[in-house]
Amino acid sequence: MRDVAVIGIGIQKWGELWDRSLRDIWVEAALNAIKDAGVDHIDTMYVGAMSPGLFVGQEHLASLCADYLGVTPVAATRTESACCSGGMAMRSGFIEIASGMADIALVSGVEKMTDVDGGGATYALATAADGDYEVYNGVTFPGLYAMMAQDYMHRFGLTREELAAVPVKSHDNGALNPHAQYRSKLTIEGVINSILIADPLTIMDCSPITDGAAAAILCPLEMAQDYAKGRPIIKVSGVGAATDTIALHTRKDLSVLNATVVAAKRAYEMAGVGPDDIDFAEVHDCFSIAEVITSEDIGFFEKGTGGKAAAAGETALTGKRPVNTSGGLKSKGHPVGATGLGQIYELVTQLRGDAGERQLKTAKRGLAQNMGGSGGSCVVHILEVV
Amino acid sequence: MRDVAVIGIGIQKWGELWDRSLRDIWVEAALNAIKDAGVDHIDTMYVGAMSPGLFVGQEHLASLCADYLGVTPVAATRTESACCSGGMAMRSGFIEIASGMADIALVSGVEKMTDVDGGGATYALATAADGDYEVYNGVTFPGLYAMMAQDYMHRFGLTREELAAVPVKSHDNGALNPHAQYRSKLTIEGVINSILIADPLTIMDCSPITDGAAAAILCPLEMAQDYAKGRPIIKVSGVGAATDTIALHTRKDLSVLNATVVAAKRAYEMAGVGPDDIDFAEVHDCFSIAEVITSEDIGFFEKGTGGKAAAAGETALTGKRPVNTSGGLKSKGHPVGATGLGQIYELVTQLRGDAGERQLKTAKRGLAQNMGGSGGSCVVHILEVV
Repeated sequence: MRDVAVIGIGIQKWGELWDRSLRDIWVEAALNAIKDAGVDHIDTMYVGAMSPGLFVGQEHLASLCADYLGVTPVAATRTESACCSGGMAMRSGFIEIASGMADIALVSGVEKMTDVDGGGATYALATAADGDYEVYNGVTFPGLYAMMAQDYMHRFGLTREELAAVPVKSHDNGALNPHAQYRSKLTIEGVINSILIADPLTIMDCSPITDGAAAAILCPLEMAQDYAKGRPIIKVSGVGAATDTIALHTRKDLSVLNATVVAAKRAYEMAGVGPDDIDFAEVHDCFSIAEVITSEDIGFFEKGTGGKAAAAGETALTGKRPVNTSGGLKSKGHPVGATGLGQIYELVTQLRGDAGERQLKTAKRGLAQNMGGSGGSCVVHILEVV
Repeated sequence: MRDVAVIGIGIQKWGELWDRSLRDIWVEAALNAIKDAGVDHIDTMYVGAMSPGLFVGQEHLASLCADYLGVTPVAATRTESACCSGGMAMRSGFIEIASGMADIALVSGVEKMTDVDGGGATYALATAADGDYEVYNGVTFPGLYAMMAQDYMHRFGLTREELAAVPVKSHDNGALNPHAQYRSKLTIEGVINSILIADPLTIMDCSPITDGAAAAILCPLEMAQDYAKGRPIIKVSGVGAATDTIALHTRKDLSVLNATVVAAKRAYEMAGVGPDDIDFAEVHDCFSIAEVITSEDIGFFEKGTGGKAAAAGETALTGKRPVNTSGGLKSKGHPVGATGLGQIYELVTQLRGDAGERQLKTAKRGLAQNMGGSGGSCVVHILEVV
C-alpha cells in the first residue's frame, strides 16, 4: 500500500441555503479544494451523501456532480453510510490512492436538507435507524440518543448542567469559525431551558438541519511535496471503519458506541499511535451526549469520565484534550453527508496552523471520528504533519 | 496492486417477492456467496443499492446488512451509482483487495422495488436522471431510451422487427435460467404488439421492476487456490469506470453511450486484451435499444451494426458474439442495485462451466457492462479463467 496525503481542502458557508441547490454548493466546495491543492485534473472522485433521494429527489449523485464540475468521464462513486457517508468517501478515496489505481482523488460530502419541511427531514433522517424494528415503532433520533443520555447520566452520575457544558463549548469554538452555521454563544441555563425535544435533551443539545458541502484532494505521499507550496505535508496515517448492530435494543451497553471503539482501534493500529499521541479531535456530536460517549470511545477519557472532563474545560481550545475546535456538528452545522469531510477540513486547517482565532498551540496530529445513525457505523481518520 | 480473484458467487430467485423484505433477500444471496466460496469470515463488505430510501424507507444500508448477516463490526460501505450501484460495489471491493487493506471482501447488490406502487417506482427510478433539467420537465426513463431508439433507427436503418429480436433472444436465454424473473418465450410480433410505453418501445422492450440480490466473494489471486475446490481460478483482469453528462440533451451523440466506451477502454487496457479476445458479455439491456448500443460501445460490433447483428442471431447462445446469456435485465429481471452483481454471477457461472442448458462452448473470458441511468455512469469488468 502507498502512503496517502491530503493536499487540498474546500468548504463553503454552511447554513439554511434556500437560494442554492445541492449541485451549487457541492461544486463550490469541490472547486475550493481543487484550487487549494493546485491540481490540474482528478483521476477519481467520491461523493458521500446520506439521502439525496429523500431530501431533493436526486440519486445517481456522483455522476451528477462529475457532470456539473465538468470532469466527465472521470470515475465517480457515491458512498453512503448515513451520517458518516462523508467519512466513507474519504476512506474510499484513501484506499484507491493507496492501491495505485489513481493518483489524484477528489473526496467530498454534501447534503441539501432544507428543501423538505421539518417532517420530511425527520423522516429522511430516521431511515438511518432500523426501519422495521425502530422507526416503525415511532422512535426518532433524538429519542435514541435521549435513551443513551438517560443510561449514561444514571450510571455515571453526570448532571444536566455538566451535559449542557458540551454545546456551550461547541458554540464558543464555532463562534470563531467563519464557515459555521450558528456563531452565537450559549449558556448552561440557555441550553437547559430551551425547548425539550426528548428528555433530557433540549433543542440546544441537538445538532441542526444544515445545507453544506466539503471536499478534500488526496494523492500519494510521495507526490505531496509537488503541491505543498511551503505548507506542511499532511499524511493520512490511520484509517479505521467498523459497524455495530443498527438497532439500539440489540446492543449490550447503551453508553458505549462499539463501532467507534473498533474503528478507532483500527486507525490507531495503522498509524502506530495511541490516544495520548493525538493533539486534538473532531468527533461526531450529533447530540451532546454523543460527544461525551465518543470522546471516551476514542480513548481520550475513561468510560464515565468524559462528561465531567468536558464540564471541567478539558475539551476546550485551551484544555488538555481539545475536542471539536470547529464548533462541531452542533455549532458548525450537520449536513449529514458532508460532516465527515467537514471534520477533515478542520483537521487540515489546524495542522496547517490556519485556524485563526481558534488555532491550537499544538496541532501536529489530529483525529476525526464520524459515525452513522445511532452509531451503527463509524469511520476514524488520523492525520499528521510529517 | 495485487491481482484479485472471484472465489464465490451467490444469488436468489429474482421476482416480485411481496412476502420477503430487503434484508431477507440480501442475506440469502450473501450467505450463498459465502458458502460457495467456503470462507469462514469476511474482512470488508460493500452493498450496491440505488435507492432503498425511496423504495423501502431505509438508508444506512451496508450497516443494516452487516448487522443482519451477523458480521459486525466488519467495515461496510454502500455504493450508489443508480443502476450500476452493484457494479460499483464490485469495483470498490476489487480496489480494497488490490490495495492490501483487506483479504476477503463480500461485494453485493440489492434492490427491493415492489414495496411501492408503480408510480412510486417510476418516481424512484427517475431520480437517476437529472432532476432539475430532465425529470422536472416530465421525462421518464422509457422516454429517454425511446429518444435514443428513434435516433438510432433513423440514422442506421434499424427496423422495428430487428429491434424486437433483442428481447426475443433475451427470453430464449432467460427461459434456461432458474433464477430469472420471466422464463416465458417471446415472439417478434408479441414484442411489437404489446402495450406501447414510449414510441417505439413497447413494454416488451423494457426491463421489469424486480426484487433481487446478488453477491460475490473476492480475495487476492495468490490466495484463490485455497478456495478453488477443483474449480477454475477466475481472475478479475480488467476494471473500468467512467461518467458522462447526466442529461441527454447535453450529449453530442444520442446513439453512443460514452461512459460505456471509456469504461470498456479502461478495462481492456488493464486486462491487456481487446473486444476480439472476449468470449461473451453481459450488457445492461434496461431497454432493447440499450443492448444494441452497448454491444457496439464495448467493441463487439461497429457503430450502427449491432442491431442487425442481433437480429441475425450473432448474439444468441450459438452466435459468434453471445450477449446476455443469463437472459439479461429483460428476462432475468432488473433489481437495479443488484444487476451489476447478477452479471458477475452469470460470468462466473459460465466461466466455471456451470450454466447448464445455456452453457457456452467457449467461455474463458467474459465481460460485464453495468450502467446507471441513461448512461451517466458505467462500470465494466473483465473476468477470465487463469
